[in-house]
Amino acid sequence: MYSVGVRDHFMIAHSFQGPVFGPAQRLHGATYVVDLELRRPTLDDHGIVVDIGLAGELLRSVLGALNYRNLDDESAFAGRNTTTEFLARVVFDRVAERIAAGALGLGSEALCTMKVTLNESHVAWAAYEGALPTTSGG
Amino acid sequence: MYSVGVRDHFMIAHSFQGPVFGPAQRLHGATYVVDLELRRPTLDDHGIVVDIGLAGELLRSVLGALNYRNLDDESAFAGRNTTTEFLARVVFDRVAERIAAGALGLGSEALCTMKVTLNESHVAWAAYEGALPTTSGG
Amino acid sequence: MYSVGVRDHFMIAHSFQGPVFGPAQRLHGATYVVDLELRRPTLDDHGIVVDIGLAGELLRSVLGALNYRNLDDESAFAGRNTTTEFLARVVFDRVAERIAAGALGLGSEALCTMKVTLNESHVAWAAYEGALPTTSGG
Amino acid sequence: MYSVGVRDHFMIAHSFQGPVFGPAQRLHGATYVVDLELRRPTLDDHGIVVDIGLAGELLRSVLGALNYRNLDDESAFAGRNTTTEFLARVVFDRVAERIAAGALGLGSEALCTMKVTLNESHVAWAAYEGALPTTSGG
Amino acid sequence: MYSVGVRDHFMIAHSFQGPVFGPAQRLHGATYVVDLELRRPTLDDHGIVVDIGLAGELLRSVLGALNYRNLDDESAFAGRNTTTEFLARVVFDRVAERIAAGALGLGSEALCTMKVTLNESHVAWAAYEGALPTTSGG
Amino acid sequence: MYSVGVRDHFMIAHSFQGPVFGPAQRLHGATYVVDLELRRPTLDDHGIVVDIGLAGELLRSVLGALNYRNLDDESAFAGRNTTTEFLARVVFDRVAERIAAGALGLGSEALCTMKVTLNESHVAWAAYEGALPTTSGG
Repeated sequence: MYSVGVRDHFMIAHSFQGPVFGPAQRLHGATYVVDLELRRPTLDDHGIVVDIGLAGELLRSVLGALNYRNLDDESAFAGRNTTTEFLARVVFDRVAERIAAGALGLGSEALCTMKVTLNESHVAWAAYEGALPTTSGG
Repeated sequence: MYSVGVRDHFMIAHSFQGPVFGPAQRLHGATYVVDLELRRPTLDDHGIVVDIGLAGELLRSVLGALNYRNLDDESAFAGRNTTTEFLARVVFDRVAERIAAGALGLGSEALCTMKVTLNESHVAWAAYEGALPTTSGG
Repeated sequence: MYSVGVRDHFMIAHSFQGPVFGPAQRLHGATYVVDLELRRPTLDDHGIVVDIGLAGELLRSVLGALNYRNLDDESAFAGRNTTTEFLARVVFDRVAERIAAGALGLGSEALCTMKVTLNESHVAWAAYEGALPTTSGG
Repeated sequence: MYSVGVRDHFMIAHSFQGPVFGPAQRLHGATYVVDLELRRPTLDDHGIVVDIGLAGELLRSVLGALNYRNLDDESAFAGRNTTTEFLARVVFDRVAERIAAGALGLGSEALCTMKVTLNESHVAWAAYEGALPTTSGG
Repeated sequence: MYSVGVRDHFMIAHSFQGPVFGPAQRLHGATYVVDLELRRPTLDDHGIVVDIGLAGELLRSVLGALNYRNLDDESAFAGRNTTTEFLARVVFDRVAERIAAGALGLGSEALCTMKVTLNESHVAWAAYEGALPTTSGG
Repeated sequence: MYSVGVRDHFMIAHSFQGPVFGPAQRLHGATYVVDLELRRPTLDDHGIVVDIGLAGELLRSVLGALNYRNLDDESAFAGRNTTTEFLARVVFDRVAERIAAGALGLGSEALCTMKVTLNESHVAWAAYEGALPTTSGG
């Protein structure tokens, strides 16, 4: 199995609901350094998993919609705790949707799995990993 | 699959038996920077894999019992080479036992796999990864 | 010149005033991974720059007063932009004050300079470095 | 499952064919920081996955044959784009061949899978992971 | 003294002249992960050393003129060995020139020193550090 | 000012004398990841600070004399606490002595300062920095 990965980051404010979160129930924030990893069993005719330039732009675009925001004010997350693991899934789903819509170009239907890791500090991180749905071909 | 990870470290002395170890047969030591990764297929009602604060405390507690020791003097390891891969398994087993005893609280029975990585330098590491036994509830 | 360093982190929300900050004028947040470095020209009788355990506790204590907060609500920072470089100075001043009050124990009057670096992502950081005032001996 | 890993690097020049590569069609180069990870389900009698000293030497030897070269001039890669993912596979195959020839000594037939990761910058990497063929004993 | 830093990278081919370089006399290449650090004694009215967004764009622009090139073909470097330390100086000079021309906007005349570090692998790096000339005010 | 740096590591056992060291009074150990940085104001005719290959070999040789040892048994350190900062100075002095003896070849008399950093974990380090004595030319 081949894989390629790209790294970018975003910076947000949020708060959590529930005593399990202790002082993180207060409004605070985080930098998330994000690793996006894409996998497929064989290389295409160019010798690549995917156009890594497009992959980087896609990640930047998805993170850009979250960057410099207070997630407590985002209607998409109403009633949810925007934990690191939850946000890893959000990024996964949004990237997957864009891939299905063709954001990575020809050949991306051969991608089989994807992993999104959010590093929140030098000592903590969370990730979501799963299969990519077959991309729609029209 | 979701995962969360936490990092901590411990510092020990030890020596190895067997010519395969060359100069490492002498008494020497190591800093192990330890990554603990816990996985489950779905998030709980709070939107988390596990209480990451408890996970950090659990790792610190398990490593604390090894920290600042000469492993050659530990009866638990008598007759064994405390290699990096062996110690990864020791940490795995001790963390798993504590989880089974409830150290991570409600919901930790949903954890399915765990990985423990010991980084011994900037150019070498070892890990043990496996299923978590069903935690006892009764 | 000798130096010792310790690393810890804190997570906050804040916003900035002024068009130079672009989208960072919105409420957002950051994880700051903080490096504290202490320097003195000679070692003490124990062969140390300073008790590194005390240094770590001091850093943790100073960062704890900032951690999991919205800095826009902190009266100490009213009317100020809590930029990374500004916060590096805040941490510097608070650590210096505690050192002057004896937080690092005997011998810390020999410390001459200190540097505080705040890493805000994998691609950006800021620091403040300066002389330590002569500690008060009473 | 146990794993051990070692890190080394090599530095090469190359160019790519195809408009998908944009400016990387020009002759340029890269440093690849390479992580080699070897896995087996149980430890041997010495308590190891493999002799990590031999693993490091093997990686150094395989990378040495690529280091300080213009890959466009290597007949082994004629007509191929030596992308990061392609090179991860090249390193994988060459290491696997040496393992099969006995480079890791007794017990290496118990190795089941291997992963080779090439980090090309602080924000991009690629990998190839696969089963190791049964090593020849005869 | 305050400082801010930003990180980016570029990838080039080159060769060196002189037996001291051994196998690096062959055409090869490198990824350089570049850290740019800017310093000034006081913060401006916004609480910053410099607009970090502009600093990042400036670094990207300067590295862009070197990226994906064979430095042996660049007339600017004719007859010179483009070693890591030499390139650190090239980046320093080009960034300094742009700062003097106003690329960092108002207040950048207060910058006093700058450091450019080129990391060429996980085990080697080089840097150039120096005073910034007084910027021209027109 | 130009600088070049190289990284290597060593692994030792030791114990400390004095209540300030708490549990580190027990026999334990450490991995030290060592950064050696050499500085000079101008480049030589080859465009280098120093032959980086020789610098790496010199560091490896100096660390090799410490590696895989119990420092409590080394007569050179009798009656001394081999703290991280103390060992940074030991490495500094041994490297400086070898440079003075010609280990870095022609031109190394132009080196003016040197810094040795010992990273003992992901959250702690120590360093010694100083002038290099004029090398003997005979």
